[in-house]
Amino acid sequence: MEDLTQVKYALDTFYFLMCGALVMWMAAGFAMLEAGLVRAKNTTEILTKNIALFAISCVMFLLVGYNIMYVDNASAGWLPSLGFTIGAEHTTDAVLKGEADHSLGADFFFQVVFVATAMSIVSGAVAERMKLWAFLAFSVVMTGFIYPMEGYWTWGGGFLSETVGFSDFAGSGIVHMAGAAAALAGVLVLGARKGKYGANGEVNAIPGANLPMATLGTFILWLGWFGFNGGSQLLLSDVENANAVGQIFLNTNAAATGGVISALITARLLFGKADLTMTLNGALAGLVAITAEPLAPTGLAATLIGACGGVLVVFSILTLDKLKIDDPVGAISVHGVVGLFGVMVVPVNNSGASFGAQAIGAAVIFAWVFGASLVVWLALKALMGVRVSEEDEYNGVDLADCGMEAYPEFTNK
Amino acid sequence: MEDLTQVKYALDTFYFLMCGALVMWMAAGFAMLEAGLVRAKNTTEILTKNIALFAISCVMFLLVGYNIMYVDNASAGWLPSLGFTIGAEHTTDAVLKGEADHSLGADFFFQVVFVATAMSIVSGAVAERMKLWAFLAFSVVMTGFIYPMEGYWTWGGGFLSETVGFSDFAGSGIVHMAGAAAALAGVLVLGARKGKYGANGEVNAIPGANLPMATLGTFILWLGWFGFNGGSQLLLSDVENANAVGQIFLNTNAAATGGVISALITARLLFGKADLTMTLNGALAGLVAITAEPLAPTGLAATLIGACGGVLVVFSILTLDKLKIDDPVGAISVHGVVGLFGVMVVPVNNSGASFGAQAIGAAVIFAWVFGASLVVWLALKALMGVRVSEEDEYNGVDLADCGMEAYPEFTNK
Amino acid sequence: MEDLTQVKYALDTFYFLMCGALVMWMAAGFAMLEAGLVRAKNTTEILTKNIALFAISCVMFLLVGYNIMYVDNASAGWLPSLGFTIGAEHTTDAVLKGEADHSLGADFFFQVVFVATAMSIVSGAVAERMKLWAFLAFSVVMTGFIYPMEGYWTWGGGFLSETVGFSDFAGSGIVHMAGAAAALAGVLVLGARKGKYGANGEVNAIPGANLPMATLGTFILWLGWFGFNGGSQLLLSDVENANAVGQIFLNTNAAATGGVISALITARLLFGKADLTMTLNGALAGLVAITAEPLAPTGLAATLIGACGGVLVVFSILTLDKLKIDDPVGAISVHGVVGLFGVMVVPVNNSGASFGAQAIGAAVIFAWVFGASLVVWLALKALMGVRVSEEDEYNGVDLADCGMEAYPEFTNK
Repeated sequence: MEDLTQVKYALDTFYFLMCGALVMWMAAGFAMLEAGLVRAKNTTEILTKNIALFAISCVMFLLVGYNIMYVDNASAGWLPSLGFTIGAEHTTDAVLKGEADHSLGADFFFQVVFVATAMSIVSGAVAERMKLWAFLAFSVVMTGFIYPMEGYWTWGGGFLSETVGFSDFAGSGIVHMAGAAAALAGVLVLGARKGKYGANGEVNAIPGANLPMATLGTFILWLGWFGFNGGSQLLLSDVENANAVGQIFLNTNAAATGGVISALITARLLFGKADLTMTLNGALAGLVAITAEPLAPTGLAATLIGACGGVLVVFSILTLDKLKIDDPVGAISVHGVVGLFGVMVVPVNNSGASFGAQAIGAAVIFAWVFGASLVVWLALKALMGVRVSEEDEYNGVDLADCGMEAYPEFTNK
Repeated sequence: MEDLTQVKYALDTFYFLMCGALVMWMAAGFAMLEAGLVRAKNTTEILTKNIALFAISCVMFLLVGYNIMYVDNASAGWLPSLGFTIGAEHTTDAVLKGEADHSLGADFFFQVVFVATAMSIVSGAVAERMKLWAFLAFSVVMTGFIYPMEGYWTWGGGFLSETVGFSDFAGSGIVHMAGAAAALAGVLVLGARKGKYGANGEVNAIPGANLPMATLGTFILWLGWFGFNGGSQLLLSDVENANAVGQIFLNTNAAATGGVISALITARLLFGKADLTMTLNGALAGLVAITAEPLAPTGLAATLIGACGGVLVVFSILTLDKLKIDDPVGAISVHGVVGLFGVMVVPVNNSGASFGAQAIGAAVIFAWVFGASLVVWLALKALMGVRVSEEDEYNGVDLADCGMEAYPEFTNK
Repeated sequence: MEDLTQVKYALDTFYFLMCGALVMWMAAGFAMLEAGLVRAKNTTEILTKNIALFAISCVMFLLVGYNIMYVDNASAGWLPSLGFTIGAEHTTDAVLKGEADHSLGADFFFQVVFVATAMSIVSGAVAERMKLWAFLAFSVVMTGFIYPMEGYWTWGGGFLSETVGFSDFAGSGIVHMAGAAAALAGVLVLGARKGKYGANGEVNAIPGANLPMATLGTFILWLGWFGFNGGSQLLLSDVENANAVGQIFLNTNAAATGGVISALITARLLFGKADLTMTLNGALAGLVAITAEPLAPTGLAATLIGACGGVLVVFSILTLDKLKIDDPVGAISVHGVVGLFGVMVVPVNNSGASFGAQAIGAAVIFAWVFGASLVVWLALKALMGVRVSEEDEYNGVDLADCGMEAYPEFTNK
């Protein structure tokens, strides 16, 4: 019996680590997606931003974020030592007494990659015109404070879960809409790229330089999402939990497929063409939509929820362009608008949730992240400037910020 | 004891889900392989096709395919509800009585990604000249009916396994040769690309636009194949099954390495050069060859089986070109010719299989899939046309079908 | 109890297989990293080299290497049969008696992918001027003899671990520095690329053709490293081991993030720009640095160790260029210089290790691999030549060795 408890602990730890590795892989997905959707001259910088923001997210979460977000779960004296020690792990004794399900190290590893996901969303929306170091400065505050604070309110045992009854299984709101809210604040402070919106109200398409890369990024995100949603069940080692994780994998995949098909058809009806970038955004929209409740729906219901996300994202992208909110990769639509939809659709399948609580939760998260982010963006604008010079924007931020081209032999300038 | 049964169930479910995630990742592999091997002007369309066919495969298998293929395994009333419900999962009681090994959700997730694999094979062979929407229409029929029907004959408890004694562990025939048979029918209906075969019988090489992408795709497929073959053992949680899965991983890898080396050397002897695309096809051929029986051979035998696949694929590609069967990515050779070889080589290492039964199984699968596919392709040709106009083919199907270029800044047209 | 022992065996086997699959994936990482960092005209050849060296590594390790390196662990008569047989696997009886922890097939699969990692390191350093077939001939000797021999000295129970007390958890020295030592010998025999070093001592930058590909490769390696280090714990199935694997995942990630940030800042201070390739090398340097002891440090200590690696790699790359040691991808700095640092920093966190033993181990490994490699490179130079002609180097090795371009439509020559 004692050995069995240890095996359960090991299995749940391993499940957490594999799911965490899949979520870490999403960092590559965001990097490839965004690198494929910007112009060649801004590619090196967005790659640099993506790898640097992942690193900053992990360091900030290690230093302060995890403590803020999950302080009740942390064992006494655990973070004050500013780091993990073997001694602080659950002892075998504690596990045998039923006081712990899986390794604290695995828990941190799984949670930390979520922070980076939220931050990656911002990266794409502000692409092609933001100063690299201003972005990195923002990421320090976002991943160290803004995200952990609102994460705590629900997942850390704060008032949104305990008092309001807000329900967000894997983070349509807490991760995706939060990232989009920070992105929206940034985009409003930054303004649109030169040439995106004409004087007579026309919207000029600025095509991405490398669509296979963008497609690869989407597939990577899709794969990583199995860890994102599947790991959020937190346990696997009995029949009920194993069934739940199986259903979550199935539903996560189903929602993505629904989003692909509905976005493809919507774009075909609107534009007469099978628009690949809309289809990719459809896949991601399906995934975002199911993330708030990937367990309760049937496979067919999950497909339909994803399909709603796929339609919504196409119209949202068109609407944001009408409002001259310039988001080069569609991140605000995919993660923000569809994230909100995901939060609000939870009660349809989960009778334990209510529309009122979901609306309050979404409003609180949006207000906090948007407001706090706006303050930080404006402070950065005053302190160091957030937008590159017109000349640097024209020549590409790669040369200005990174001093090297992403494709030195392919483009004719 | 009851807890132990639950842990076994959880471990087997988790193993299934991880293997399924690896197979899902093969969708990215096919997309990158095919995108790398076509010309730049046909890249967006093949990416769109690949992500759309994956989505269609999953939806069709959810709606009808799984029911056709595994109806005997399904619990009563399970699919008539047109989707999964939590209530339909195995209860803890049923698991404790030994009636179930792993979650139904995980089972569906693992099986559904196989369907997409079969369909992905078709995509490459008909590249650069087929209408996108005709292809997607075909994929609805293929993944909803043609594939599940022949899959049922062996894996669903149909006559090929029960009466004939046909043996195909992970699908050299059922998945790979089947996909190639559908592709061959499509290619015959479509005809060759303009300019591929000259008036005087010469074969013109049409090089792929992005070989790093094609190489990445091959590595992705290689990685995914561990799930494809490894998961097909279906169970892991005792010594015998764990040993089997270990051997399958080892053999799958060994066969791929054999295919790489033999194709590299064969191409060097024939052409005087280290031909990368033949080497990539050699890796895939090795993987296809071992898929019908990845458990019984020793590691060395698996290497040799893979090596035979690698030689075979080079000669097959050359022969198909002599027959003016135009397959831009070599899919019919890799999955069809080598798939047949994989099926027929099973009895060499597995004494439970016979050459006669293997031949009957292969013939039945080929006849069914080729015949049914031909009917569908011809019907589509009559209804909506399957081939793009000469002008669209000249300009690339990307602009005609998708309205956007994959690499707008890299090519000089 | 007997069933529980079987489940433990299955869980540990599965953990080994998943970690092995992640390490296999590193082969794709090296291929993409190197393909992105060379010029377009040398890309096909480096892709061919990478997939071929992986295949050769696996075949040589199967035939001779595993036997040399782990002969004490092998069951009697296991390799003389030149391959794995099912009969040679651990029997259920043996497992129940506590004689085995996980499947031999899984063990081989995990170990074999390490060999390929060591060999991949060489590939990048000799890029853009070495003859393909000379490289492949070297890889036969390296993976069949040179690496297994020094691997045996520590991991196989040889004198470095048993007598000297050398400690190298997952191979900063045994895998990474060893690969770099072989690379250094090759680079010294080969000489620098034409045009890299000017007559007046100036160092000319030769930018890589595809930085998104190089970034993808880095992310792939990062992901694969969780298997590399995490699997090196060898067991998972009780509380202590599960905690250890959790800590290793956390520390591996933390070290990479430390390397990213420190290399980014170092490059910014030195060059005034956010140098992407240095940042990528910083990530890899962090990973190499933690590999010799990923378990003992706290998360913060791991971050700092990685950060030291990130600073070190920037200065090492600059220094090697001053010495006119031409390493196109920085492999000798990342894996060699930082690998040595990783070995030497072990005693700081692990009280069971001593600086003296670490220094002896590093010296022995370097001397053996460098010396043996130098002999082989010189023999190959005499027998077949190792460097391509000046004309082939000017035109690119792709056309000379592979007869095809990697990006036929993108470059203007």
